[in-house]
Amino acid sequence: MGAVVPLRENRSEPASIQHLVDLTSAGMQAVNEVILSKAGSNVELIPEIARHLISSGGKRLRPMLTLATAEMYGYRGEGHVALAASVEFMHTATLLHDDVVDESDMRRGKLAARKLWGNQASVLVGDYLLGQAFKMMVDVGSLEALDILASASAVIAEGEVMQLGAAQDITTTEERYMQVIEAKTAALFAAAAEVGPVLAGADAEAKRAARAYGMALGLAFQLVDDALDYGGTASDLGKDIGDDLREGKITLPVILAIRRGKPEDLAFWKRCLEERVVEEADLEKAIALMHDTEALADTVTRARGFGEEAKAALETLPAGPHRDALAEAVDFCISRVS
Amino acid sequence: MGAVVPLRENRSEPASIQHLVDLTSAGMQAVNEVILSKAGSNVELIPEIARHLISSGGKRLRPMLTLATAEMYGYRGEGHVALAASVEFMHTATLLHDDVVDESDMRRGKLAARKLWGNQASVLVGDYLLGQAFKMMVDVGSLEALDILASASAVIAEGEVMQLGAAQDITTTEERYMQVIEAKTAALFAAAAEVGPVLAGADAEAKRAARAYGMALGLAFQLVDDALDYGGTASDLGKDIGDDLREGKITLPVILAIRRGKPEDLAFWKRCLEERVVEEADLEKAIALMHDTEALADTVTRARGFGEEAKAALETLPAGPHRDALAEAVDFCISRVS
Repeated sequence: MGAVVPLRENRSEPASIQHLVDLTSAGMQAVNEVILSKAGSNVELIPEIARHLISSGGKRLRPMLTLATAEMYGYRGEGHVALAASVEFMHTATLLHDDVVDESDMRRGKLAARKLWGNQASVLVGDYLLGQAFKMMVDVGSLEALDILASASAVIAEGEVMQLGAAQDITTTEERYMQVIEAKTAALFAAAAEVGPVLAGADAEAKRAARAYGMALGLAFQLVDDALDYGGTASDLGKDIGDDLREGKITLPVILAIRRGKPEDLAFWKRCLEERVVEEADLEKAIALMHDTEALADTVTRARGFGEEAKAALETLPAGPHRDALAEAVDFCISRVS
Repeated sequence: MGAVVPLRENRSEPASIQHLVDLTSAGMQAVNEVILSKAGSNVELIPEIARHLISSGGKRLRPMLTLATAEMYGYRGEGHVALAASVEFMHTATLLHDDVVDESDMRRGKLAARKLWGNQASVLVGDYLLGQAFKMMVDVGSLEALDILASASAVIAEGEVMQLGAAQDITTTEERYMQVIEAKTAALFAAAAEVGPVLAGADAEAKRAARAYGMALGLAFQLVDDALDYGGTASDLGKDIGDDLREGKITLPVILAIRRGKPEDLAFWKRCLEERVVEEADLEKAIALMHDTEALADTVTRARGFGEEAKAALETLPAGPHRDALAEAVDFCISRVS
């Protein structure tokens, strides 16, 4: 038999969330069962749409954060499963409403629910999932966890409204952009990580650190996502890019490219993002301008910075396989782009 | 000085909610302050839209139910104010989303928020108000009240999805219609009335009775609303009628008119409600058919029946001015139509 090389030491292996997936697999199976049962309803359309979203293969990173941060503090109950499912429902409700707001046609490579069932059903089924999420949280019975998740719910919506106000406004500052992504994305990562130690009865420092980890991870995640929408730093472009340009979304790659670009390029950005006239060759031009100004590379650099912040926050959490897996999840999120 | 005639004895006076308004006026002033402060946000659009809705002059019947049912059980804290404000936020969020779903142009005689700020902002500000509602409930700290209101939130959305499925389907049964209005309207009235005794620490029988009162009142309220959309039983038609016909909504007046009408009228209903081709003279014809079949009169009769049920439920609640005012509120709701 060959020598067993501890995987965690094998630095040449690409970062993966497989360790996190393995560690939380029992809990995630329970989460999936809860999701399927709570997305049920006698009203036909509801389980139909819910199943569409649930089977569309998200990574379920957020609920895994809740399970992992609860388990690493020795939580032995069932409440973390319900809270993790609630977190995923909140996320799914946001996706349903986002697609209506963005008028998106696709979601994770499949037709968006709103294209299949209409905007009306997407709005209402989102509301239903949010209501079910709160019911599940109430059943768990932790007012502290409820407070954290209810606050996240309001903050997410606030971030989305802020984003709507900033859309198609090329004078949006980097500071404003960071406020938007902190609210619309990072707040749920932060809440998902924080409710774990809350449920486990951990101390204030543990909750603070778990929250800081989730927040920084969420920021890194969104920055990477925004870079990927322009193909990231790689020169071979995948499919499904350019949505943000077509939707007039002002993300960091755009903000940096405009700020550092030549004044004569401003008319191009105005036409694409403010007047919403985007032609066939414009995506390529936008990407070229972003490479010229190092806008994409620096977006990724910022994501790496938040990734380091996330890992630093982990240092006060209990050492062990969960902490290692959470650290690796940070690298995985960033490795999507580089 | 003249003799003081007790107002409650004056049976010739038309039913009014003025007694309920007077009894809850101190609490409602606090509710309005909470609403204005919690609808605030640094994100400009949010208080703008919230103020538009809040100033548009709804009667605030739902939060008054919460205040009255708490006060009649001697509740002396501040929690009922926050719960009442939460109930109003849930209702306002529903209105915002409803207008998007129904593609309504008007709401309470003013332009609907979605016409002023767009569907996108209406969806997201609705989400924000719902998040704030849950935050307020969490602050009150009653898991039992939270459970009641979170359940109502899911049930309301379920009712709206059910209504969407029934829209433009003239085979919708009366039973199905009753399920829809119980979920989309009466569930919030029921929850609003139930959380009062919950907060006051009243017994199970008190909670059950308050809930039954709210549920029956909500059903009566919606039946009256649906009759009013066709001008009620009066022959002089006010403005703002005919929305349901134009939106293809299948309400009890329509269901009764179809079931009792001549087979040759079916083509008319199909064209209006299923094919959504509604011409200038169609509303008048629809109303004439409803009068011929006594569809409107019987819708109101059913509302009266639920009104009696609501008043019967009050009998086990503590006698006094609150109970009298709640009984009168039932008559007021029904008097809108007759």
